[in-house]
Amino acid sequence: MTKILVLHGPNLNLLGKREPEIYGDVSLDVINSRLKALGDEFGLEVIALQSNSEGELIDALQEAGRISIGVIFNPGGYTHTSVALRDAVAAIDVPVVEVHLSNILAREDFRHHSLIAPACAGVVSGFGWRSYTLALRALSDIIKTA
Amino acid sequence: MTKILVLHGPNLNLLGKREPEIYGDVSLDVINSRLKALGDEFGLEVIALQSNSEGELIDALQEAGRISIGVIFNPGGYTHTSVALRDAVAAIDVPVVEVHLSNILAREDFRHHSLIAPACAGVVSGFGWRSYTLALRALSDIIKTA
Amino acid sequence: MTKILVLHGPNLNLLGKREPEIYGDVSLDVINSRLKALGDEFGLEVIALQSNSEGELIDALQEAGRISIGVIFNPGGYTHTSVALRDAVAAIDVPVVEVHLSNILAREDFRHHSLIAPACAGVVSGFGWRSYTLALRALSDIIKTA
Amino acid sequence: MTKILVLHGPNLNLLGKREPEIYGDVSLDVINSRLKALGDEFGLEVIALQSNSEGELIDALQEAGRISIGVIFNPGGYTHTSVALRDAVAAIDVPVVEVHLSNILAREDFRHHSLIAPACAGVVSGFGWRSYTLALRALSDIIKTA
Amino acid sequence: MTKILVLHGPNLNLLGKREPEIYGDVSLDVINSRLKALGDEFGLEVIALQSNSEGELIDALQEAGRISIGVIFNPGGYTHTSVALRDAVAAIDVPVVEVHLSNILAREDFRHHSLIAPACAGVVSGFGWRSYTLALRALSDIIKTA
Amino acid sequence: MTKILVLHGPNLNLLGKREPEIYGDVSLDVINSRLKALGDEFGLEVIALQSNSEGELIDALQEAGRISIGVIFNPGGYTHTSVALRDAVAAIDVPVVEVHLSNILAREDFRHHSLIAPACAGVVSGFGWRSYTLALRALSDIIKTA
Amino acid sequence: MTKILVLHGPNLNLLGKREPEIYGDVSLDVINSRLKALGDEFGLEVIALQSNSEGELIDALQEAGRISIGVIFNPGGYTHTSVALRDAVAAIDVPVVEVHLSNILAREDFRHHSLIAPACAGVVSGFGWRSYTLALRALSDIIKTA
Amino acid sequence: MTKILVLHGPNLNLLGKREPEIYGDVSLDVINSRLKALGDEFGLEVIALQSNSEGELIDALQEAGRISIGVIFNPGGYTHTSVALRDAVAAIDVPVVEVHLSNILAREDFRHHSLIAPACAGVVSGFGWRSYTLALRALSDIIKTA
Amino acid sequence: MTKILVLHGPNLNLLGKREPEIYGDVSLDVINSRLKALGDEFGLEVIALQSNSEGELIDALQEAGRISIGVIFNPGGYTHTSVALRDAVAAIDVPVVEVHLSNILAREDFRHHSLIAPACAGVVSGFGWRSYTLALRALSDIIKTA
Amino acid sequence: MTKILVLHGPNLNLLGKREPEIYGDVSLDVINSRLKALGDEFGLEVIALQSNSEGELIDALQEAGRISIGVIFNPGGYTHTSVALRDAVAAIDVPVVEVHLSNILAREDFRHHSLIAPACAGVVSGFGWRSYTLALRALSDIIKTA
Amino acid sequence: MTKILVLHGPNLNLLGKREPEIYGDVSLDVINSRLKALGDEFGLEVIALQSNSEGELIDALQEAGRISIGVIFNPGGYTHTSVALRDAVAAIDVPVVEVHLSNILAREDFRHHSLIAPACAGVVSGFGWRSYTLALRALSDIIKTA
Amino acid sequence: MTKILVLHGPNLNLLGKREPEIYGDVSLDVINSRLKALGDEFGLEVIALQSNSEGELIDALQEAGRISIGVIFNPGGYTHTSVALRDAVAAIDVPVVEVHLSNILAREDFRHHSLIAPACAGVVSGFGWRSYTLALRALSDIIKTA
Repeated sequence: MTKILVLHGPNLNLLGKREPEIYGDVSLDVINSRLKALGDEFGLEVIALQSNSEGELIDALQEAGRISIGVIFNPGGYTHTSVALRDAVAAIDVPVVEVHLSNILAREDFRHHSLIAPACAGVVSGFGWRSYTLALRALSDIIKTA
Repeated sequence: MTKILVLHGPNLNLLGKREPEIYGDVSLDVINSRLKALGDEFGLEVIALQSNSEGELIDALQEAGRISIGVIFNPGGYTHTSVALRDAVAAIDVPVVEVHLSNILAREDFRHHSLIAPACAGVVSGFGWRSYTLALRALSDIIKTA
Repeated sequence: MTKILVLHGPNLNLLGKREPEIYGDVSLDVINSRLKALGDEFGLEVIALQSNSEGELIDALQEAGRISIGVIFNPGGYTHTSVALRDAVAAIDVPVVEVHLSNILAREDFRHHSLIAPACAGVVSGFGWRSYTLALRALSDIIKTA
Repeated sequence: MTKILVLHGPNLNLLGKREPEIYGDVSLDVINSRLKALGDEFGLEVIALQSNSEGELIDALQEAGRISIGVIFNPGGYTHTSVALRDAVAAIDVPVVEVHLSNILAREDFRHHSLIAPACAGVVSGFGWRSYTLALRALSDIIKTA
Repeated sequence: MTKILVLHGPNLNLLGKREPEIYGDVSLDVINSRLKALGDEFGLEVIALQSNSEGELIDALQEAGRISIGVIFNPGGYTHTSVALRDAVAAIDVPVVEVHLSNILAREDFRHHSLIAPACAGVVSGFGWRSYTLALRALSDIIKTA
Repeated sequence: MTKILVLHGPNLNLLGKREPEIYGDVSLDVINSRLKALGDEFGLEVIALQSNSEGELIDALQEAGRISIGVIFNPGGYTHTSVALRDAVAAIDVPVVEVHLSNILAREDFRHHSLIAPACAGVVSGFGWRSYTLALRALSDIIKTA
Repeated sequence: MTKILVLHGPNLNLLGKREPEIYGDVSLDVINSRLKALGDEFGLEVIALQSNSEGELIDALQEAGRISIGVIFNPGGYTHTSVALRDAVAAIDVPVVEVHLSNILAREDFRHHSLIAPACAGVVSGFGWRSYTLALRALSDIIKTA
Repeated sequence: MTKILVLHGPNLNLLGKREPEIYGDVSLDVINSRLKALGDEFGLEVIALQSNSEGELIDALQEAGRISIGVIFNPGGYTHTSVALRDAVAAIDVPVVEVHLSNILAREDFRHHSLIAPACAGVVSGFGWRSYTLALRALSDIIKTA
Repeated sequence: MTKILVLHGPNLNLLGKREPEIYGDVSLDVINSRLKALGDEFGLEVIALQSNSEGELIDALQEAGRISIGVIFNPGGYTHTSVALRDAVAAIDVPVVEVHLSNILAREDFRHHSLIAPACAGVVSGFGWRSYTLALRALSDIIKTA
Repeated sequence: MTKILVLHGPNLNLLGKREPEIYGDVSLDVINSRLKALGDEFGLEVIALQSNSEGELIDALQEAGRISIGVIFNPGGYTHTSVALRDAVAAIDVPVVEVHLSNILAREDFRHHSLIAPACAGVVSGFGWRSYTLALRALSDIIKTA
Repeated sequence: MTKILVLHGPNLNLLGKREPEIYGDVSLDVINSRLKALGDEFGLEVIALQSNSEGELIDALQEAGRISIGVIFNPGGYTHTSVALRDAVAAIDVPVVEVHLSNILAREDFRHHSLIAPACAGVVSGFGWRSYTLALRALSDIIKTA
Repeated sequence: MTKILVLHGPNLNLLGKREPEIYGDVSLDVINSRLKALGDEFGLEVIALQSNSEGELIDALQEAGRISIGVIFNPGGYTHTSVALRDAVAAIDVPVVEVHLSNILAREDFRHHSLIAPACAGVVSGFGWRSYTLALRALSDIIKTA
């Protein structure tokens, strides 16, 4: 089993169009393509999924626990408010890496705290779309050395 | 393009039946009819939608960003807890007016703060179903003078 | 008795000149004129008053309790600090609608909380001078249906 | 009308597999079977439903208000974050009993507070799957003595 | 010099009419008369003054420091918000007794704290108009034993 | 039934000896004598009791609910920490007046809040032993007008 | 050894008379009788004890650790303030179930937090006297499966 | 236009008499004289004004915005509580320097925060009457280099 | 007068049996014996007393103020909640040293703060039973140099 | 100019020996070697420096601003307490990436907040020594695309 | 002895280059020269020292206590975090004036509080390099009138 | 290896001269001599070191981990602010005893919390220079029984 799930949370489907001064001008499709290409290098099949629904994201994390060997997760606005997503991350046995496009610690106060990160293996934030590729490298290393 | 989206959040489908001493005894259908009639006066097509799902509300706001010229939004219980809805409001280019049937500042402490309002054009609260018609007037003016 | 009092709090006499990027460029006289004209439509005599003094504003609210059938109140900077004004609003038997030119929830933290709103019928904020005309409509409806 | 709804929140479908040192090793199916059997003793038809989606849980609570005479609700991670679910509980006329498998007061700080419990009839927590059967007994008594 | 100043803060002129379930149905004039009569018993001339203005209350406290031998002060809504009144109480050399008609500790949270009391000799609250006569007795004793 | 219970909390048996700059130099016996004498004037039998034990104070309050028509209570250090004493005050049907020798609002922060006062009729604090005699007058008036 | 201790905290001796709208109209004796009867069904000897004294409750918990196989504990007002009772619960080797007649999470803020619950096996609250019988069932199950 | 307004807030008219161990023994008249003399050196006409009224202080700041080129402002007790004065400072186009006689950061906690300072050019505190002359020097420099 | 009181608070009678990984496996009797032996070296008669009752501990502290020349006090769970014990320590004229077996700062948050320590001469914590012998040495030195 | 500074904060010199279950068993020298090797791939000269002194770390950051084109910074325990280091990061014109070996959000509360991160380009935490190599990749990309 | 120490804290060596929109474009050397020139006018020898190290700043303050008659201290980022520097200021017998180039109350929240100011004679902030010359004037006056 | 390190933090070199009413009039040299003498009794070589620099104190703790068998540490003002020192204490394998001359819990609020104590074996505070000798006894016992 060599699948990696890349899970994009709420509003990330607007990437490239939404507030580009914060989130950059690269679309989600482009990010997914770059991740798939990089995954190929590592012998990992990258499957990407975006949802605005907290429940669907939980479903996807649980599914990832069954079919993948690791997850890259950008919880978007749910980062700061969702105990249910944290529980889902804690409930599955595969490592999860949290990513953020922007440096959330440099933004509004309510974005400084992640409820989900304590259940993750690690966090990468602030590097735009490269946060994802760095996370994929990190995840690949975690899997290899596990 | 002359559509206005009226977006009703969780539990508002129970309007008229649920705790009428707080929310009044007018049903959601009646409110929507009155909004449509008033919209006609202003040359605006009012489209109403209710959902109990945070994810569907985000979907609807994004859709509104593509097909409407303004949104009236009653986020219900998500008002106080949803960063993801705030991000959706901020992500779209059309003005959003937040409405509440009750005066949320006169209720429990946890209802005093709106996470969503800072991304909105303005807020109308406490006037029962008339909060919606006032919001439609406000939105109509914002659109005309934009 | 068909009088409505419009009560403007501290620094609102500077309207049109003071920080127009926040408060707009319409003067208080113009707002008052528009309210009088709209009041005429509703058969309501609009009386406007501005004061920088908390005590005078309390006096005016008490007077309004005796001679008017409703109040539109922009408490300005006292919104966030005055229990005495809240008590005055609660002490009178006519409905009071709180208005703000700017969306106070989108500004500094200390402007997010209104001590006065819990004693009011409702709140309109963020629509510039139109916050006042919307409030007059709301007040007119409250009075008619009371 | 003699139906009871048992509503399981996010991640409870993983029961028996997820962190068994906290949540026990009994699956959701087994719990539901035991509840149905106990319901038979009390002359109550137990209908069980699990969802990871806050919106679907609200839908189910509203449905319960129409077709059941009582609800047993384990809100999982939404316990601590959902005003919308609390509003749904308050909006329906049938009694709701909140249950938790683990003793939430003995866990992380953010699990100590339930936003939903104040709208419920009572709370049972900490007894593993028996929290559910105790809740069904409690609910049965509430209904009989109502 | 045998004068006592009784100083009534904002909205106390409405006494007897305003929210009688909280403040009682005795008017300010009646309270003042009772205080004057009781003062006569103690050989003290009671002078009463009411103002809605924080500034005038400060003026009055300063005047009391020059012409009276003690002050009974009901700061009303300023109790909880005025450092300037506290400074005025601290700045004068005559004893000040704080009174409240209602038991402020049994009301809303923001009424639980008095900024002014730490500068006073003592506090009497919760006995309706009798809070004033008790305070006059207390003040009379303080003066005699000073 | 014309008994009044005067209930002195922890460490008040040391009165006159303990930190006289805060609590005065009058002993508890002297205070009790003065209260009995004043009670005679009002036709009330004053019974005094001191205990350092929270449990005994609860017992005494409950007893007072059966045999007396009012209570004067100085909860001492338990003022700030005892929900159980507050519950006892709320559980009995006779009025309770809270007294403090010192002005607790002018002392350390942890003495500013009374958990018990919200369940009392009123509070007198800061007048030394006279806080008790003022409280007896207040209680006598409450009983007469009840 | 088949004894169960039922331990009632402060003011519970007033049950049936004290604030029946909150605590119900069933007396403590009746509750104890029902518990003894139910205990007989389970082959458990139920011993009941009430005290208003925190120290006696600690003594009783320690005694329970020596002579009983489980404790049902309603700490009353000490729930929210007693570290010493929590330590006693943690110090003994038999399971303790915390019960409350009322739903403490639906009452004043200071009743929302239990200092004692984290040391207990579980909590039952909000079902009136039935909270006790549910707790006895729970305890019986815990003991059987231990 | 070469006028400077020196604005003294509440209780500063008592200077020299009020708590001299905190505020020094120099009267307001003497301070004003020294400021006028120093103003002469700088070619600036110093106009001094004291008021205990928040409203009059707002009026004066607004007037200063029309007729002066800078303001020295000691807001006294209003420093910590007045949003309305902060708004007035922000609303005028001339620089305002905040001064305090005492070092407010070395006093009670509630004096540590200035609501007004963020709208000022700078702050001088702790140097007694010299805080004013230092502020005049600072203001003179700001004006020259503007 | 050469007596020293050693006062053990709630649950310390269980020492040696209760949670030995936190509190050690030495019994209270052994500690008392060691203290008596060490007291003999210093010419001090050590009297030991344990109580689970806050009231009895206050009684004992007051007694110590009359018959001893110093107190070693382990307030146990009352350390964090008792203002009444703090007042008793402050009310007596002999020095009190607070001791803890465990390092309370390394345990749960609610154990980090001692309400009683500010009234004590000093604190020794974290050294198991040796905290007591160190405290006796400290007390002996304080007494000799007083 | 193609130098990169890698700056290790307090106690990182103990790496490999100190609490390896948290920080891993790879020494600082090994990390530095791996970074130098990876730097070679990117055409970057990696210079590593460790200091336990806040002042020396500030000196080093300032030096980096003059001689390097980017910084990788692990502030260790200063992460949570140093405004001075944040100011140094903000004061220099080259990008700084903050790294942590452990996932600081999954540790003690006082480690959840980084005072320094808001001034950084981004953050990588939780991947052990690989946090550094990921940071070097991120920094290399930032520099290339700047 | 007529020396004055001017002590510049962390990052102030970058003055003129670092964020000039906040800190101005005047270098530290220029400020020191102006202070020396002004010191000459007052007959004071000004000695300037800058360090990024908290320990060296403490050393310098202690040295100042031995060889100077007053200190001007800009603690930079240590203003908000250093108890050790506050203790050093309190430990020496010469007056210390705290200065800030920017108006720290108008910046980020964590810059609003000075841990050091309570131990200083006074504070000057917000006037750029002139904060220093004003402080020297203030210090000169303090010394002359001491 | 029989060395003990005694580590004195910032400003302790001033001991005997600095605020003797708080810290006593015994110099650091005298304390060190007494510790060396007492160490001789225990067969321990006492090495004393003082530094005002947080970095040097970390260096010294690390050194102590290599060459000593225990540390007595007075962190002075760093007690309340240094995570880096806590990390150093936790990183070394020898026991550390924290000492304070004054009773820090009886001083300003910001001195009540020790960031370092949770990583220490125990704490002795409030006994002046004897805090050190008590700590040496404690440390000697810990080492012997380890």
